[in-house]
Amino acid sequence: MKKIVTLGEVMLRLSTPDHERFFQASSFEIEFGGSEANVGATLASLGNHVTFLSSFPNHEIGEACVSKLRKNGLDTSFIQYFPGRIGTYFLEYGAMQRSSKIIYDRKDSVFAKNVCKNVNWDKVFENVDWFHWSGITPALSQKAADFTLKALSECKEREIKVSADPSYRSNLWAYGKSPHEIMPELLSYSDMIIGGARDFETCLGLETGVGFPEVFEKLPKLQWIAATTRQSLNASENEYSASLFTREKSFHSRKYQLNHIVDRVGTGDAFAGGLIHGILNESEEKAIALGVAASVMKHSISGDVLHCSLEELEEIIDQETFGRIKR
Amino acid sequence: MKKIVTLGEVMLRLSTPDHERFFQASSFEIEFGGSEANVGATLASLGNHVTFLSSFPNHEIGEACVSKLRKNGLDTSFIQYFPGRIGTYFLEYGAMQRSSKIIYDRKDSVFAKNVCKNVNWDKVFENVDWFHWSGITPALSQKAADFTLKALSECKEREIKVSADPSYRSNLWAYGKSPHEIMPELLSYSDMIIGGARDFETCLGLETGVGFPEVFEKLPKLQWIAATTRQSLNASENEYSASLFTREKSFHSRKYQLNHIVDRVGTGDAFAGGLIHGILNESEEKAIALGVAASVMKHSISGDVLHCSLEELEEIIDQETFGRIKR
Amino acid sequence: MKKIVTLGEVMLRLSTPDHERFFQASSFEIEFGGSEANVGATLASLGNHVTFLSSFPNHEIGEACVSKLRKNGLDTSFIQYFPGRIGTYFLEYGAMQRSSKIIYDRKDSVFAKNVCKNVNWDKVFENVDWFHWSGITPALSQKAADFTLKALSECKEREIKVSADPSYRSNLWAYGKSPHEIMPELLSYSDMIIGGARDFETCLGLETGVGFPEVFEKLPKLQWIAATTRQSLNASENEYSASLFTREKSFHSRKYQLNHIVDRVGTGDAFAGGLIHGILNESEEKAIALGVAASVMKHSISGDVLHCSLEELEEIIDQETFGRIKR
Amino acid sequence: MKKIVTLGEVMLRLSTPDHERFFQASSFEIEFGGSEANVGATLASLGNHVTFLSSFPNHEIGEACVSKLRKNGLDTSFIQYFPGRIGTYFLEYGAMQRSSKIIYDRKDSVFAKNVCKNVNWDKVFENVDWFHWSGITPALSQKAADFTLKALSECKEREIKVSADPSYRSNLWAYGKSPHEIMPELLSYSDMIIGGARDFETCLGLETGVGFPEVFEKLPKLQWIAATTRQSLNASENEYSASLFTREKSFHSRKYQLNHIVDRVGTGDAFAGGLIHGILNESEEKAIALGVAASVMKHSISGDVLHCSLEELEEIIDQETFGRIKR
Amino acid sequence: MKKIVTLGEVMLRLSTPDHERFFQASSFEIEFGGSEANVGATLASLGNHVTFLSSFPNHEIGEACVSKLRKNGLDTSFIQYFPGRIGTYFLEYGAMQRSSKIIYDRKDSVFAKNVCKNVNWDKVFENVDWFHWSGITPALSQKAADFTLKALSECKEREIKVSADPSYRSNLWAYGKSPHEIMPELLSYSDMIIGGARDFETCLGLETGVGFPEVFEKLPKLQWIAATTRQSLNASENEYSASLFTREKSFHSRKYQLNHIVDRVGTGDAFAGGLIHGILNESEEKAIALGVAASVMKHSISGDVLHCSLEELEEIIDQETFGRIKR
Amino acid sequence: MKKIVTLGEVMLRLSTPDHERFFQASSFEIEFGGSEANVGATLASLGNHVTFLSSFPNHEIGEACVSKLRKNGLDTSFIQYFPGRIGTYFLEYGAMQRSSKIIYDRKDSVFAKNVCKNVNWDKVFENVDWFHWSGITPALSQKAADFTLKALSECKEREIKVSADPSYRSNLWAYGKSPHEIMPELLSYSDMIIGGARDFETCLGLETGVGFPEVFEKLPKLQWIAATTRQSLNASENEYSASLFTREKSFHSRKYQLNHIVDRVGTGDAFAGGLIHGILNESEEKAIALGVAASVMKHSISGDVLHCSLEELEEIIDQETFGRIKR
Repeated sequence: MKKIVTLGEVMLRLSTPDHERFFQASSFEIEFGGSEANVGATLASLGNHVTFLSSFPNHEIGEACVSKLRKNGLDTSFIQYFPGRIGTYFLEYGAMQRSSKIIYDRKDSVFAKNVCKNVNWDKVFENVDWFHWSGITPALSQKAADFTLKALSECKEREIKVSADPSYRSNLWAYGKSPHEIMPELLSYSDMIIGGARDFETCLGLETGVGFPEVFEKLPKLQWIAATTRQSLNASENEYSASLFTREKSFHSRKYQLNHIVDRVGTGDAFAGGLIHGILNESEEKAIALGVAASVMKHSISGDVLHCSLEELEEIIDQETFGRIKR
Repeated sequence: MKKIVTLGEVMLRLSTPDHERFFQASSFEIEFGGSEANVGATLASLGNHVTFLSSFPNHEIGEACVSKLRKNGLDTSFIQYFPGRIGTYFLEYGAMQRSSKIIYDRKDSVFAKNVCKNVNWDKVFENVDWFHWSGITPALSQKAADFTLKALSECKEREIKVSADPSYRSNLWAYGKSPHEIMPELLSYSDMIIGGARDFETCLGLETGVGFPEVFEKLPKLQWIAATTRQSLNASENEYSASLFTREKSFHSRKYQLNHIVDRVGTGDAFAGGLIHGILNESEEKAIALGVAASVMKHSISGDVLHCSLEELEEIIDQETFGRIKR
Repeated sequence: MKKIVTLGEVMLRLSTPDHERFFQASSFEIEFGGSEANVGATLASLGNHVTFLSSFPNHEIGEACVSKLRKNGLDTSFIQYFPGRIGTYFLEYGAMQRSSKIIYDRKDSVFAKNVCKNVNWDKVFENVDWFHWSGITPALSQKAADFTLKALSECKEREIKVSADPSYRSNLWAYGKSPHEIMPELLSYSDMIIGGARDFETCLGLETGVGFPEVFEKLPKLQWIAATTRQSLNASENEYSASLFTREKSFHSRKYQLNHIVDRVGTGDAFAGGLIHGILNESEEKAIALGVAASVMKHSISGDVLHCSLEELEEIIDQETFGRIKR
Repeated sequence: MKKIVTLGEVMLRLSTPDHERFFQASSFEIEFGGSEANVGATLASLGNHVTFLSSFPNHEIGEACVSKLRKNGLDTSFIQYFPGRIGTYFLEYGAMQRSSKIIYDRKDSVFAKNVCKNVNWDKVFENVDWFHWSGITPALSQKAADFTLKALSECKEREIKVSADPSYRSNLWAYGKSPHEIMPELLSYSDMIIGGARDFETCLGLETGVGFPEVFEKLPKLQWIAATTRQSLNASENEYSASLFTREKSFHSRKYQLNHIVDRVGTGDAFAGGLIHGILNESEEKAIALGVAASVMKHSISGDVLHCSLEELEEIIDQETFGRIKR
Repeated sequence: MKKIVTLGEVMLRLSTPDHERFFQASSFEIEFGGSEANVGATLASLGNHVTFLSSFPNHEIGEACVSKLRKNGLDTSFIQYFPGRIGTYFLEYGAMQRSSKIIYDRKDSVFAKNVCKNVNWDKVFENVDWFHWSGITPALSQKAADFTLKALSECKEREIKVSADPSYRSNLWAYGKSPHEIMPELLSYSDMIIGGARDFETCLGLETGVGFPEVFEKLPKLQWIAATTRQSLNASENEYSASLFTREKSFHSRKYQLNHIVDRVGTGDAFAGGLIHGILNESEEKAIALGVAASVMKHSISGDVLHCSLEELEEIIDQETFGRIKR
Repeated sequence: MKKIVTLGEVMLRLSTPDHERFFQASSFEIEFGGSEANVGATLASLGNHVTFLSSFPNHEIGEACVSKLRKNGLDTSFIQYFPGRIGTYFLEYGAMQRSSKIIYDRKDSVFAKNVCKNVNWDKVFENVDWFHWSGITPALSQKAADFTLKALSECKEREIKVSADPSYRSNLWAYGKSPHEIMPELLSYSDMIIGGARDFETCLGLETGVGFPEVFEKLPKLQWIAATTRQSLNASENEYSASLFTREKSFHSRKYQLNHIVDRVGTGDAFAGGLIHGILNESEEKAIALGVAASVMKHSISGDVLHCSLEELEEIIDQETFGRIKR
């Protein structure tokens, strides 16, 4: 049983039921989601011990959110509470040729304003094997960027492996800094980065299309680059695969046909969760297969979070056809 | 911002949830739908001012229906109220090889019995650019046929453009007249007719398969014929395209693969709405593209009515693949 | 109008709504299902008189279950009540590459413990044309196996035709007997057996892959073997067809593409129902077509039971494309 | 086990969920209800054999309605089907000082137009002990009034006891006859009449306030008059009791405080069901107690129909306080 | 038909279903509410023409909100759109001894930041009889306070009657001004003020308990003070009445027992709506009765808004007991 | 922050929605409940650290249940998993004069068969202040009775305070022992017993009506007896209070009127939770007040479990009237 810490913001997610448009909806389904908590929940569901580092409003909805994280298996004992608001996003599920749509209302959240205070790093990182963060956190506020750097330097001291999902989002980064001022230093602590080539380039200030060798050059500590490939035919039909690159080798997953997609949100986080589990507990080859299988599985589940067993992922890796009823 | 008037009956639509059969359902979802109101709602959602001319029962359900039309952006200030019943239809959503099924219970509705009385045509048609009607109205009663003719002659006086959806339905026309006794005169006022070749032939008393030249000949004022083509593989998978014909030219849309269809009802009305918007505000070429895009969009939305933005339609026209999450 | 008797256990079926995982669900949808009752309900819905022979707990949930069977058109007047529990199964609907999952909790049910007592066979079998049972019943308990044998010998005396679905399930047969000790004698009464080759072999103690001639040889009274073929691409997409074999001839159905599957549970029972109806009321050729059409139809309906009309099945047999709205 | 026949129309009942106003509702809950079928369902639930005589549209919604009657335990084998519509009513549940509201849309239903044709009275009334009808049926059409008379004369021949609920509703009786032209003859067949004094007076053409002696005088065959008394404080709080009068004696029930009323519709029918059961199987004193207990019970159940056991009614009769959890 | 203008912010209201706690809820019901829009909706539902002055985010949820206001009968043609967020509040419905709880998240809304810009006052106030505002608006921002003052001076020029609900809320007023710096000037334009004594005192800077004579003295233009009295036994049971004071006379409503309360939110706004309708169309005596009846009615309806007819209010005024089903 | 351990079985609770009867329900709401877990959840919600000792089936529904316990704040790290079934109970919510009804199906559950194996008592009871158990556990099986005794002797060694809820249920105790053979020894370890006088008498083998002095005499270690008093007018209206007795003194709570009861299940457990919290953290006088306030609060919340804050309980203790909206 490995120990992992993830750091990030969790938002209140309000989605329209039954593929309704915002214009039609008379109720929202409540989920709580955030990239790093999602990664943590997948890792917990696969049997790892996962501590989530974050802060929440000290009101009933903040408390309800933390209870859902506990339900998902996260250790929430280091979470902090402050007065303020919870970041929120509204999700209209797409269908067919109609895209899903997200409206963010996350400004001035307690997490962006406070991150965490007076953290006892020795306790948080006691016996920890891996730390995961994403580029969303330093995009929120200077305080959040500083806190991320502090966490990373604490990892370095303890030789904890670090993965990062650079995740560049143009509608964040509103506090006066641009990603290439902040991200290269933060990313330099990484053993693994996960995401798409364009994200890496934007965050590292590289030219478009330079390729992974440049990324490896820019980040000397880096051991693994993991990248997913998606062909999006429409909101319900995609093609999906992924690759893992080391400085010497590359590993490629099967390509899956994804039809009848239930929920695309959080599939990248499920990929990261499956991948990190594989690297920590299995081989590199198995890791990329587990990452993709976790992502495939997540497409069939509504909400932000993948909850599944290792056996289920292995069936997705091994089987050619799917869908027999399991009794 | 163009001004449009549509005329027609709105029915209470009661549909089974979650593709249940009538035999299984313990609740009905409530919508209010009618071909011409649907066309109007699409036009309103695209930014036009649309007045809807109709009558409703003077009870709470009639009032609820009118409030939904207001929600959809229609100007309901000319709607009239009489004692009586609202026409109703029951919809069982199909799935796979099982067709959707509609049971009508629309006889003796307040609209069929009263249509509208003592209309102030100068106010209704003040600054109006376009009038749309369908063959459903004159099929309901002699009074409804007479009222349609009156409305058309008022349009003629004011040089308002007229579109008609002949929409022949064999289970209507129960008051002793057949369509070819009534429809040719009404259709002679048309600048545009929308629908399928067989409808045109039945309503004009033409032989089967004569083609559009005969239609243009029979209707000297006619400028545009718009026709859609649908390949229905099963209740969830169709192929869809459309064409616009003038006396000189023809314009053809892209052909769309429609998988995972959410709701087919009202897709023809969405087509008419998009098309009329295009003719009024853009070119003929753009108009047929907008009509088809509106119809494609409607297939992804439950209920009778398309509500969307012009930008969304333009994405459907321009993009090759679909389904990326819009943030 | 033919008279049919079916015998078997009905379980409380608790399924997660909207393809939720067990981990996510906050409610279960209630159905009551059992292979033989499902076959009976299809036959009743096609216009036959069907008596269902079973026992239930004498509490409110047992009573609610029987009321649902009445709703489905079964004659429940011979059903018996005893103190005890109702067998239960939990169903997680799959989607995409994620399989559906069933957790059984059926041990020590009133049916397994009591079956039926002091049956007046003359009344039960008065004017009856056909009797249907499945291998699930003798797998539950010695008492249930004995009762099945008694029922079959009563059929023999009255020259009632018998069909059997051998339906071997490895997680049953827990009372100390194995299927090949019990089933060959029971199956020897059959005029028709329905299912898959592997089931026949296991239940008759034949070697794997021996084929239908051996089955006909082993069961001298047997007139028909009906077998279905399914290609399961994933939980939502299958290919489906079936064949009917007599000692001289074979009849093969169309092959159907099943996309957007709503519910796979009970599709084999719908097949049996359509097939038996066809044999009793039509030709062998029509019977296999009706069986497959019934199964196709069932895939589009949630729950255990097919309810449809003969006309609907005939459309599925006759049409090349599907999905036009029926008004 | 007594045999009872009831005759009447069943309507599709569409009610707003959660006490919503019509203006707010986006779905209707589906029930099927009619006074005489409700009486029959209560009697069936108490263990009697009840045949329901009626007609329905020969479409899927008519069929669904009949399946619900079967679920409620009614023998539906004499029900007839014709083309046409099902009578419908819309129910807005009240709350507090806001009354419940019903909008009827029942004109020209298949029942009003056809009632039943070519009835085999010998089969319908074979071994029957009791026949129940209400004043709603003869109020619908001349054909329905004639059929009621025919049924009553068939009862007389067979010495079947007859109960009637005169149930005068001013918004019916629209075919040109008034109740006092039709009802006195029909009511003269009654052994029991059930309802309120004002109904009796209107239907018999008596002056207001004349009292029950006049009713007994006017109806020489009459043995029992049963009348309920309700104090309606608001939609959620009532006081309720009833009395049974013979020519010599009177029996009075307890008075119940009804708070937190769930659904008032059908409570009079539950009263009639409990009362008739009591007269047929117990004493007059017990009968009036059972009638009121059945009505009290119905107030706690949503829908038109009471389903309960005799034991539950006896607890309501015997206990002083209520509401302990039964385990 | 009177013309009324109301000004204010509308928030997204997200409430837990079925009295669930925030801790339990997996969905929120969506309403849009704001004190002044609620007052306007009641006035519109009673037949007046009501224009609502406000601003909303220019995204799909802003648009959905405005469509709901249109459904409620408000004239939304003067509403403005800006980039930004919509104020939100979360409502946990209480029950019994557990209070309802509201969590506000309304800071930095588009309305607080922009109010309305470049208003064409001549068009807005054309033929207008009455203007209504509340103390919530000037509590939001200096810009909102200034805009309120501008609107009031425009009213003065046109001799439009003005009502104000001072509505002091301690968790607003966060922009550096206190109510007694802003409110006395704004309130000096009032013909009517509505609310509770403590609100008046706080907003006018009066000592606690001074009484209405002081209020009349402080506000020379003031004609009417309307005050409600509520005894709150628990979340489901209240006692409710109200009084209207002029400089010479006072009018007192009936006192209503409110049991089984469905939703208390918006009851004060319903009171204001009924009262203003009465003053504009009826006598002072009738006005206070209508205000209280509207509030009583609102307690029985979920959501922020009362929708009802004048007839329904008159029944609540006239009847002693309630709850008979209206057919 | 006190440390508490509770031991017991958790069952799957399936309840009908909206007060439906079993006969009506088409879905069940899922909760997981058990007396001792409920007590623990209340204590956790009030800020204590609570470890729950139990066993569950090693399938997805067992896992889902444990995740809900984590959500409720329980430390689930000592829970064990075995093959088998989860005990289940079905709950029909009552209303008015209709009682709630529970059907148990808990026989042969994994807990009854296995309880817990090879427990590391030093770890479980490290720094623990209090242990709570109930009479339900020893009623399930000899193994469960033995395990309870073992746990109690481990408490004794560590001087951990013990509370017991004797909770005699006649439909348990089916393994051949009667309560007075097992319970006196187990209860002799108690510092506190909670429940009703009749339970104490049955479990201790005392005569009916002997009173609390006898109980104190029989259990020399006993310090506190806590007893609740409920007057049940009907399923929605109760009167409720409680008392705490020591050997010298007695403390009595307020008496609360409980109207509009939402859910009575688990109210005794909420009482125990509030009481134990009070004894551990406050005075005896405050403890009995907190226990009753917790129970009052629970009546307003659906499900088995009270989740609330200490502040909310103190309002219920301090306030005379209730129900103002908290903003």
